[in-house]
Amino acid sequence: MEELNKQLDFIIELDRLKGVYRQALVKADKNRFENSAEHSWHISLTAQILHEYAVEKVNISRVMSMLLIHDIVEIDAGDMFAFSDEKDLAEQEDKEIAAANRLFGLLPEKQFQMFNQLWLEFEHAQTIDARFAKAMDRVLPLLQNMRNEGGSWAKHDLTKSQVIERNKYLEGLAPKLWSFVCAQIDLAVKNGWLRDA
Amino acid sequence: MEELNKQLDFIIELDRLKGVYRQALVKADKNRFENSAEHSWHISLTAQILHEYAVEKVNISRVMSMLLIHDIVEIDAGDMFAFSDEKDLAEQEDKEIAAANRLFGLLPEKQFQMFNQLWLEFEHAQTIDARFAKAMDRVLPLLQNMRNEGGSWAKHDLTKSQVIERNKYLEGLAPKLWSFVCAQIDLAVKNGWLRDA
Repeated sequence: MEELNKQLDFIIELDRLKGVYRQALVKADKNRFENSAEHSWHISLTAQILHEYAVEKVNISRVMSMLLIHDIVEIDAGDMFAFSDEKDLAEQEDKEIAAANRLFGLLPEKQFQMFNQLWLEFEHAQTIDARFAKAMDRVLPLLQNMRNEGGSWAKHDLTKSQVIERNKYLEGLAPKLWSFVCAQIDLAVKNGWLRDA
Repeated sequence: MEELNKQLDFIIELDRLKGVYRQALVKADKNRFENSAEHSWHISLTAQILHEYAVEKVNISRVMSMLLIHDIVEIDAGDMFAFSDEKDLAEQEDKEIAAANRLFGLLPEKQFQMFNQLWLEFEHAQTIDARFAKAMDRVLPLLQNMRNEGGSWAKHDLTKSQVIERNKYLEGLAPKLWSFVCAQIDLAVKNGWLRDA
């Protein structure tokens, strides 16, 4: 039963991700902040719906797994706004590596290795699967902000080039989605939700 | 672009599941009610971690997809407590079928068929994948209630036999998990969280 007890401890620990709040707002629930657990659900499904747009072969099962686990480190490290300054983002990276070791380390060794490697693959964003997963993590906030008068972009006075840079994984990998994203960003500038810089 | 627009409309519509609240409480976030989006995330990961206990071959990718979508119908039909009376549960079933048609119907035809069939497979719980998925949907509330002094069981004065009946998918399919669940239910009775009936 020792293995099972470790797995159940990890599963219960996951509950805490429901209390980690992001900058994104949930328009459908009185514009409260979104938590990282429901966000992970949303992008896993988004990946499943949109993976046909990738021009290279994506293993959707791996991508879904990556997206389901990609924010678990925030249980210890907290969420950091994507457009924070570079020093803060570098410190956050160290915190997240320690968090991955502690949290995935609750699992039996074989699953620890599997989840930790999958999370690192996502973070490094070198493989097709990881790049597609990253793209999904980034395209959803764009959709949310576009439906919410600029949402967190407008609130933090962001620029067009910052948002383009963040969504660039789509370029080449899913050209049709990339065209859509570029058009949305132009519209956001026109609407005054992003600065034209 | 018509296909993409349909898919994006569906993805945005999914946001509403974050505003559908269940009976379960999130202990890690001030004991607020849990919503169906974060619940879906949690059980999809639970399935990934525990599927090795199934004695028959489970297609974990299909199971994860099933669990990610299984509650989407609640966007229109709302959540109904699992132990409601039979007449209410039958009415809920009709509402959910209509909801599946409207919500998955937002997608292009091919994806509508795929998601609708996957959801129906889950509901009918005849295949190995669907039975394992159902078992995960039911074992997590048990874990949550055991960590929360009986949680929704104690609040609704439930009996041991009701909870056993609800978790029976594990019997035969994952005997080790079934033994664990039976032991937890006995402990809940001993602690006064479930009535011994």
